[in-house]
Amino acid sequence: MKTFLDEIAWNSDGLIPAIAQDYRTGQVLMVAWMNAEALRLTVQENRAIYWSRSRQKLWRKGEESGHVQQLKELRLDCDSDVIMLQVEQIGGIACHTGRASCFYRVLEDGKWRTLDPVLKNQRDIYP
Amino acid sequence: MKTFLDEIAWNSDGLIPAIAQDYRTGQVLMVAWMNAEALRLTVQENRAIYWSRSRQKLWRKGEESGHVQQLKELRLDCDSDVIMLQVEQIGGIACHTGRASCFYRVLEDGKWRTLDPVLKNQRDIYP
Repeated sequence: MKTFLDEIAWNSDGLIPAIAQDYRTGQVLMVAWMNAEALRLTVQENRAIYWSRSRQKLWRKGEESGHVQQLKELRLDCDSDVIMLQVEQIGGIACHTGRASCFYRVLEDGKWRTLDPVLKNQRDIYP
Repeated sequence: MKTFLDEIAWNSDGLIPAIAQDYRTGQVLMVAWMNAEALRLTVQENRAIYWSRSRQKLWRKGEESGHVQQLKELRLDCDSDVIMLQVEQIGGIACHTGRASCFYRVLEDGKWRTLDPVLKNQRDIYP
């Protein structure tokens, strides 16, 4: 039987990029990847579960840091090749650098300038 | 001399995914891809210019539809492998289906349900 997973246009590695957006503020928090298992589990467990390309394993967001992303809504784009999650970001920190969002650098006068503050030191996040 | 383009972690195809977000509402409009030339021109012309993977050529967003995306801010994520554009979406339509955003389908009870309305018919967008 066909499921919602069959409608995804997985890339040649069997992955799809997933955007996590804060469901209250609309802030874009991060982009990571999912395979079919990660997406299935994300829906089943109602929290963001990605596929770590560097570690080649499932990555339950927040499993070490506690910065879990609780799923509020899941969307798919017109080409079926990008997923968007509306999430509640526990702890208010999505980035491994201790910032609210991974998109903390802004282009200014031809240079990437770090704009957003570190909310928590990495050594306090990953003891 | 190094430029901001040299800090991008281009993928094996020389591309980076780019998220376009409405700078006023925070709505995520679409995701497309850029190569170095597209990103350089995006900054130079202050409008979103993508690389069309299907057509294998530069895609000045809005070149046919008029739905240009004027650039308000450009951000880079912590891994330097995703770009985010804050844009003013001219015409209020980012999706080729005539919807505000490409993310118009929501997962409900295990099915993708089309939620957002078509604002303009495709035949009126691409005469």
